[in-house]
Amino acid sequence: MGSALRDKAAIVGVGQTEFAKQLPGTEIELALRAITMALDDAGIPVTDVDGLASYTMEDTEEVDIARNLGTGPITWFGQVGYGGGAGCGVVGNAAMAVASGQCDVAVAWRSRKRGGRASRPWAGVGSKVYGYQQWTRPFGLLRPVDEIAMLARRYMHEYGMTREQLACVALTQRRFANNNPGAMMHEKALTLDDYLAARWISEPLCLFDNCLESDGAGAVVICSTDRAKDLDRQPVLVHAFAQSIPPQLQTMTNYFCDDPLRGPSWECAERLWRNADLGPEDVDVAQIYDAFSPLVPLSLEGYRFCGRGEGKDFISDGSIGPGGSLPVNTSGAGMSEAYVHGFNLIVEGVRQLRDESPNQVDNARTCLVTSGEGVPTSALLLRR
Amino acid sequence: MGSALRDKAAIVGVGQTEFAKQLPGTEIELALRAITMALDDAGIPVTDVDGLASYTMEDTEEVDIARNLGTGPITWFGQVGYGGGAGCGVVGNAAMAVASGQCDVAVAWRSRKRGGRASRPWAGVGSKVYGYQQWTRPFGLLRPVDEIAMLARRYMHEYGMTREQLACVALTQRRFANNNPGAMMHEKALTLDDYLAARWISEPLCLFDNCLESDGAGAVVICSTDRAKDLDRQPVLVHAFAQSIPPQLQTMTNYFCDDPLRGPSWECAERLWRNADLGPEDVDVAQIYDAFSPLVPLSLEGYRFCGRGEGKDFISDGSIGPGGSLPVNTSGAGMSEAYVHGFNLIVEGVRQLRDESPNQVDNARTCLVTSGEGVPTSALLLRR
Repeated sequence: MGSALRDKAAIVGVGQTEFAKQLPGTEIELALRAITMALDDAGIPVTDVDGLASYTMEDTEEVDIARNLGTGPITWFGQVGYGGGAGCGVVGNAAMAVASGQCDVAVAWRSRKRGGRASRPWAGVGSKVYGYQQWTRPFGLLRPVDEIAMLARRYMHEYGMTREQLACVALTQRRFANNNPGAMMHEKALTLDDYLAARWISEPLCLFDNCLESDGAGAVVICSTDRAKDLDRQPVLVHAFAQSIPPQLQTMTNYFCDDPLRGPSWECAERLWRNADLGPEDVDVAQIYDAFSPLVPLSLEGYRFCGRGEGKDFISDGSIGPGGSLPVNTSGAGMSEAYVHGFNLIVEGVRQLRDESPNQVDNARTCLVTSGEGVPTSALLLRR
Repeated sequence: MGSALRDKAAIVGVGQTEFAKQLPGTEIELALRAITMALDDAGIPVTDVDGLASYTMEDTEEVDIARNLGTGPITWFGQVGYGGGAGCGVVGNAAMAVASGQCDVAVAWRSRKRGGRASRPWAGVGSKVYGYQQWTRPFGLLRPVDEIAMLARRYMHEYGMTREQLACVALTQRRFANNNPGAMMHEKALTLDDYLAARWISEPLCLFDNCLESDGAGAVVICSTDRAKDLDRQPVLVHAFAQSIPPQLQTMTNYFCDDPLRGPSWECAERLWRNADLGPEDVDVAQIYDAFSPLVPLSLEGYRFCGRGEGKDFISDGSIGPGGSLPVNTSGAGMSEAYVHGFNLIVEGVRQLRDESPNQVDNARTCLVTSGEGVPTSALLLRR
């Protein structure tokens, strides 16, 4: 069960552009820069690239990436849907293609640019609503933040989480970002007072419970672990990979079930740990998808770092901060480094296992990276 | 190289709805019917489904398919882009996920419905053109048929193919369809006179050089070859699978290169035969993607069933017809059964290897199925 992939493929290069609210250039320019940086980092010539993995939400096309990079023949390409749920799935599928021999060197990327057709799909809500949104949009759940606010409220109700506890996600990540020169919030301090005084975006979530709006791109290079041994860089092994759509899931609005707080991360975790030789107790550092702060305690419970209802304590007792038992989102992540649909979390996961993070965890050997909670999701267990 | 997949996964069930220019119901209803038929055919309960593979162009969403089918937890999902180029890639990626242990039972499907948002994307050409189309749309290449007509003209110029030779593709497939009760053109005969008298769609291509406009859906079920042995049905092994984006490809308008007639099928074939224990000489029957008739001789050359420039003879000397050396498109395919972005070609490939085709090839052991030529493409080599 899943064991065929174990440690067969490795991430051997990472790249990311600068991040800002608005960058010059086009989405494809950003993508090409990130991919080129990742290939340079790996020490692999672009003509060796023969696999391409991307988000369905990505607006740069495989043919355009291949032509403008100047790759060799592409022998595998694939995409994964559901925006923030896709990141680890994109990289995992590339690892699967490499492990299966369908390609030798795959690149995976995500590029976002204000004004690009697919960078802020939620900003394009028109006068018609489709699919599941017809059940909730007319009743006021207009944005993803409204949908997640419902879960946050429920969690507060069931387990008594306070705003001061939830604030620890934003505050901890901001401190990491203050130490990460590449983070958009590098120079901006954040205090609990700032947090409590901030305007509501969707009660009980305030401004600082939301990810940033960012332009920028990230990329990783994946090849076989055998080939990785010949490269200069410390390879980061894809130890295990999982995706999940739980039964009867409704994307982002999975309220119509017995247990709305048991999100896709629970099933994804079950599968991930089954695919792995390791368990939650072996993880040294984690990058947990954080489009909105409540996803962090919910995911920490889902991936079994604490018990049900204990996420509120785990985020607020120092565990996720510097020197904690499980430092989380050590780049600042979506809320303080940049929001690139979670792709920068993968890049930071690799940096941690190469001893290159600005907030390096001592002797980090194993890193969990997760994608969106509340949507069809995915996760990677990386190790050196 | 690619050998990790060889014969590891099998297609164990197929389903397809009726086909018509316009069907009642929605795209998702058609998809669910085809998938349910395929699962019934396989004898696998829907709760065992844990993998979902689809076209990026598909308008039915994985979450909706999973919820409405009533599957168990989905542990792998992925998509492949480029419309008609995707079909074999979708099934191949599912086979890869099964072979890698990421899921046990995958379903792949394609559903098309007039009026659906993604069924006829080319019919929605607006006042703005994007990407590569900006180089050709303003100069009169408005539809895919215009883009392929350029290749047909070039092929006629270089190799002297006549309209009477090209007509053999449409005429041969129509004869197969006349013997296939499920084909849209089952009851409509086609003669060379009809063909020559038909109106131009894009010179030198007439009405009968074009695929049909169809509503309908197809689906296949993929599981491990080990599991397939316990099922009642003759398993059809995915012997090899390949995808290709050749260097510097421009989708559909790859004219700006030394050799526009060497399309993606050439690279895809090279990879497919490298991944396989078999060669073109071992293939008993082929389903060759036929959105437009010239793609058949071009692909037959690309996959090495004949030499360069010999496709015109191969299609017109009886080779591709009943009793020929390589019967091609034995259901009637896109031009006479239905156009479901090539997915019905995969279903027919399976029927041939289960001795269930209305135009059964005696003792068919190996079948090639190809996806779109001129676009990023894919192919499957199936065997029993």
